[in-house]
Amino acid sequence: MNTPIPVQVADADLALLTDLYQLTMIQAYWKEAMHERATFSLYFRRLPPSRRFMLACGQQHAAELASRLHFTPSHLASLADTGLFEDGFLEWLADWRFEGDIWTLREGTPVFANEPLLEVDAPIAQAQLLESLIMNLVQLETVLASKAVRIVMAARGRPVIDFGMRRMHGVDAAVRGVRAYRTAGLAGTSNVLGGLRHDLAINGTMAHSYILAHDNERDAFRAFARHYPGTTLLVDTHDTLEGVRKVIEIMREEPGVGVKAIRLDSGDLGELAKGARRLLDDAGHGDIKIVASSGLDEHKIDALLTDGAPIDAFGVGTEMGAPSDAPVIDLSYKLVEYAGTPRVKHSPNKINLPCRKQLFRRLDDQGRYAGDLIALRDEPIAEGEPLLRPLVRAGRVDETEMAEADRARERVQDALTRLPDELHSLTHGTSDYAVELSPDLKRHQSHS
Amino acid sequence: MNTPIPVQVADADLALLTDLYQLTMIQAYWKEAMHERATFSLYFRRLPPSRRFMLACGQQHAAELASRLHFTPSHLASLADTGLFEDGFLEWLADWRFEGDIWTLREGTPVFANEPLLEVDAPIAQAQLLESLIMNLVQLETVLASKAVRIVMAARGRPVIDFGMRRMHGVDAAVRGVRAYRTAGLAGTSNVLGGLRHDLAINGTMAHSYILAHDNERDAFRAFARHYPGTTLLVDTHDTLEGVRKVIEIMREEPGVGVKAIRLDSGDLGELAKGARRLLDDAGHGDIKIVASSGLDEHKIDALLTDGAPIDAFGVGTEMGAPSDAPVIDLSYKLVEYAGTPRVKHSPNKINLPCRKQLFRRLDDQGRYAGDLIALRDEPIAEGEPLLRPLVRAGRVDETEMAEADRARERVQDALTRLPDELHSLTHGTSDYAVELSPDLKRHQSHS
Repeated sequence: MNTPIPVQVADADLALLTDLYQLTMIQAYWKEAMHERATFSLYFRRLPPSRRFMLACGQQHAAELASRLHFTPSHLASLADTGLFEDGFLEWLADWRFEGDIWTLREGTPVFANEPLLEVDAPIAQAQLLESLIMNLVQLETVLASKAVRIVMAARGRPVIDFGMRRMHGVDAAVRGVRAYRTAGLAGTSNVLGGLRHDLAINGTMAHSYILAHDNERDAFRAFARHYPGTTLLVDTHDTLEGVRKVIEIMREEPGVGVKAIRLDSGDLGELAKGARRLLDDAGHGDIKIVASSGLDEHKIDALLTDGAPIDAFGVGTEMGAPSDAPVIDLSYKLVEYAGTPRVKHSPNKINLPCRKQLFRRLDDQGRYAGDLIALRDEPIAEGEPLLRPLVRAGRVDETEMAEADRARERVQDALTRLPDELHSLTHGTSDYAVELSPDLKRHQSHS
Repeated sequence: MNTPIPVQVADADLALLTDLYQLTMIQAYWKEAMHERATFSLYFRRLPPSRRFMLACGQQHAAELASRLHFTPSHLASLADTGLFEDGFLEWLADWRFEGDIWTLREGTPVFANEPLLEVDAPIAQAQLLESLIMNLVQLETVLASKAVRIVMAARGRPVIDFGMRRMHGVDAAVRGVRAYRTAGLAGTSNVLGGLRHDLAINGTMAHSYILAHDNERDAFRAFARHYPGTTLLVDTHDTLEGVRKVIEIMREEPGVGVKAIRLDSGDLGELAKGARRLLDDAGHGDIKIVASSGLDEHKIDALLTDGAPIDAFGVGTEMGAPSDAPVIDLSYKLVEYAGTPRVKHSPNKINLPCRKQLFRRLDDQGRYAGDLIALRDEPIAEGEPLLRPLVRAGRVDETEMAEADRARERVQDALTRLPDELHSLTHGTSDYAVELSPDLKRHQSHS
């Protein structure tokens, strides 16, 4: 058997993970000696109707990988085989390195329509080549964290655990997804590799198959609880409340096993949680927690808790792993400046903002977000904090800023206390949150 | 600076890409000396309302990776650190290899609700451990191929090109996605690495940034066409029909440049295509093709072609890369047999089929699919072709079957000629296609 082609992509091969036109365009720039600096801006034109804000995430990986990106001899040979590229260009590409700057919002920052999440300032062939990869990387974590934070809000302080690995779009989504979930404030994940890599607690209970592989549910419960004192038992394989009664009997027969929680994974979770709680409390097990899973999202969790369901923790998979209400965000990575001149595409009914920019966020007296201002990068703005920070300078990652990126989880916790009430709403609807353009930016917009 | 943690996952690390409960359950099986053979069956309970069939895809990678999966000393050290696992179990895990059988539908086979896409027969701790990884791998390609084939059908023989890399959920989705698109019948992809790895033509045009980086559109067109004779020019940066006129002027001034196609990427694509076609034809350029992109899906393509839009090829990104109408399928991987005994979870209003199974598909006189029968694996069924094939036997990939998996694209082309007319419909709606249970399976279902 031949050496198998790897199924997964190595970091070192990411230079080829791009759209072909990036390479043909940069060959054209090379042939035309167009080496001036350009700025590209990453933003989305509108929020999905089901989102009131997004959490900007994934910039750290994008910056790290950009700073290391290069073409190997084997990449260059593959490109030569396409017949599209000249030898001189491929030699130039062999030396291609990103030597520009990447300014980004810190990870976990709430972001609104038309605001720059990230800007790249570099010779045009460098900034152009990063487009597809940056978009792919930022898109994933931003989509997942922005959904997950809503689920965290809906759970009102109760732990939320990621069960989504099997439903997510491939391996990279499942593993980097855990990083996004960590940022969004999840308490744990079932995903072993994701949890190990991205420092989120790894949790697990048991599956129906374990119950079914035993002669009966009681034997399965007893065996599992002996192996794992303080475990969580899955009680819905046959009849949920019967399952709870069996747990209580086992605890009576073997007080040492110490079950910590039960999990409900089907049926009317609210009613079953109430029934289970009563059975457990009546048996003196007020300390046994109830974990619920099965098709949950922020709306179902909110409805369960509003209805008083005594659920202590939620396992969420499908809807958080591939959010059907907003599986993508409509990110754009647009040229906004070249050779010191503002550039802008004129599109009917669309806002396109030229120039290198900065984003300022004002706080009110209570420390809550009072409104944003999109300005030119170097425009003197008296009020508000400048949110775009240089994560890469002259091709090198700024370690101080990178350490700040690692604090994304705390940043989200802080942001949730500062978001105006209307932005905490889980329902569809537009927001009154003010995002304004600075005087200088308005002037450039109308002139260009 | 320390050695960076890789962002992407190596194939060799996929043993840890699992849900924690798989590992705690198999430690429990080990402690209980439960080493009997089990069968797990992979299927979905219902089609998404927007799908009339799915294309089973991704089994080849799942089988390859399963046959190579093992735990390295570093994996075992990470597991030891969790405090959940005994030394004896970790020693046993060091020798863990998949030694069972994997039966699957050949890739590209249309599949319906409750039909097994794949079954794993192995000692229970082997079959259990594969669950999360197989589901993640099969889910991705099945979701993407099943959407893409609808777009191919809508395009009525016109080429469809994948533009989705930037919208897809991470790197693995973007690269393995190209494999799913190849299976579904796409003509090409913009994704360089995906196209190289998975043998699909790589296509590219130009971006708005190239136009905007030049002093004017005409200069940009002329430069690009000189670099790439026979290229495709993007005409909508400022005003689409003005852009077309500029292309015509350049062709008149420099007959050698030979533009092959123009691309429309915004606005009313149908009207603009008609206008562009008239301008091109009037100038004697009936051979220049029109490529359209921008928010397309099967419904928009179908409407454009029904309306007579003279579009020759379609570029599709967002809706094919992360299909909002069905971003996941509700796959289950259920224990159906253990130690020779059927196993089944009883769920209200859900069908759960016990036992190792086989799927038979009957053809009518015209060679079209006439109905399916789900039967026991070894049940003598006189009619129809058995569709589940042993891709892995005793832990080793069957190279003959693997070569068949490589023919998935041809299999889909063939299947499209055999699907009953109602299954070609792109609208929502249930199908009358018959999926029946064999007599022996029915008997086992009612007894277990």
